[in-house]
Amino acid sequence: MQVVFQITSGERDAQLSMLGQLNNLLHYTSERQTRVAIEVVVHGHAWNLLLPESHPFPEKIASLQGRSVRFLICQNTLNSRQLAADQLFPFVEVVPAAIAHLIERQQEGWAYIRC
Amino acid sequence: MQVVFQITSGERDAQLSMLGQLNNLLHYTSERQTRVAIEVVVHGHAWNLLLPESHPFPEKIASLQGRSVRFLICQNTLNSRQLAADQLFPFVEVVPAAIAHLIERQQEGWAYIRC
Amino acid sequence: MQVVFQITSGERDAQLSMLGQLNNLLHYTSERQTRVAIEVVVHGHAWNLLLPESHPFPEKIASLQGRSVRFLICQNTLNSRQLAADQLFPFVEVVPAAIAHLIERQQEGWAYIRC
Repeated sequence: MQVVFQITSGERDAQLSMLGQLNNLLHYTSERQTRVAIEVVVHGHAWNLLLPESHPFPEKIASLQGRSVRFLICQNTLNSRQLAADQLFPFVEVVPAAIAHLIERQQEGWAYIRC
Repeated sequence: MQVVFQITSGERDAQLSMLGQLNNLLHYTSERQTRVAIEVVVHGHAWNLLLPESHPFPEKIASLQGRSVRFLICQNTLNSRQLAADQLFPFVEVVPAAIAHLIERQQEGWAYIRC
Repeated sequence: MQVVFQITSGERDAQLSMLGQLNNLLHYTSERQTRVAIEVVVHGHAWNLLLPESHPFPEKIASLQGRSVRFLICQNTLNSRQLAADQLFPFVEVVPAAIAHLIERQQEGWAYIRC
């Protein structure tokens, strides 16, 4: 299984819902010993998900990262919010354009989940 | 044509909009004598769509089901809402994890529509 | 790269956000000399995006169209809003059913972005 999640919402409910889905998915795949590659592409208003000081569930994010979920942020989002990558969790990776990455992954055969 | 719809909204407008899309799609495919497989994966707040007593358009749901639309609900959603499958329409099927099902279908070549 | 965007929102913020994403994508692909085919499928409340008199950024739409983005509207949406195609930008194309088009493109290998 290979899947790319897209999140653009800055609201906690939407972010917690996505974190719950990631946990459910990891539970499902570990029970079935299925290999899974997961990427979460963060852009638009969702950047606060990756800022350690700004949200109430940093431990949830860090725990998912430790279970092989990759978190990617868009360079365009960093630019428009005047954020530097070193303000974010250290494991966050930067992609030049979120939409381009989502397209490339789908055309490589990955599934797509819009949060 | 093979397509999986994902709905998470509990709001009537969003649900009616999806039911309209399903009707339009069935009209399109029946006019062209195109075979179509449709699954609607219900999770999050959308569970009330499948509860006969709770919403105002049960006949719309039943009519779609009669035209080969399958309605699937997530076991995780049932657990978190303390719902039993027998409270839902009798034709509803349960999948262990909504997101996993959506990924599997896409990787089998199904299209994906996010409602 | 081949990608179909779906937009159903009539809100300016959501529409501007999509136009920004299209610009970022075109910038990305032109820098890398990557060929890209982009279609924007408009339905539901988003019809006002394609009505020249009703929104504040007609020049943005026209500029994207000049850069090979195709804008498609759903015949069902025109019918339900009692709109005629000649009220819209002259470059807008009509598809019989938005959802059917989104499914066909995905099954032809196009990526899908839900706005």
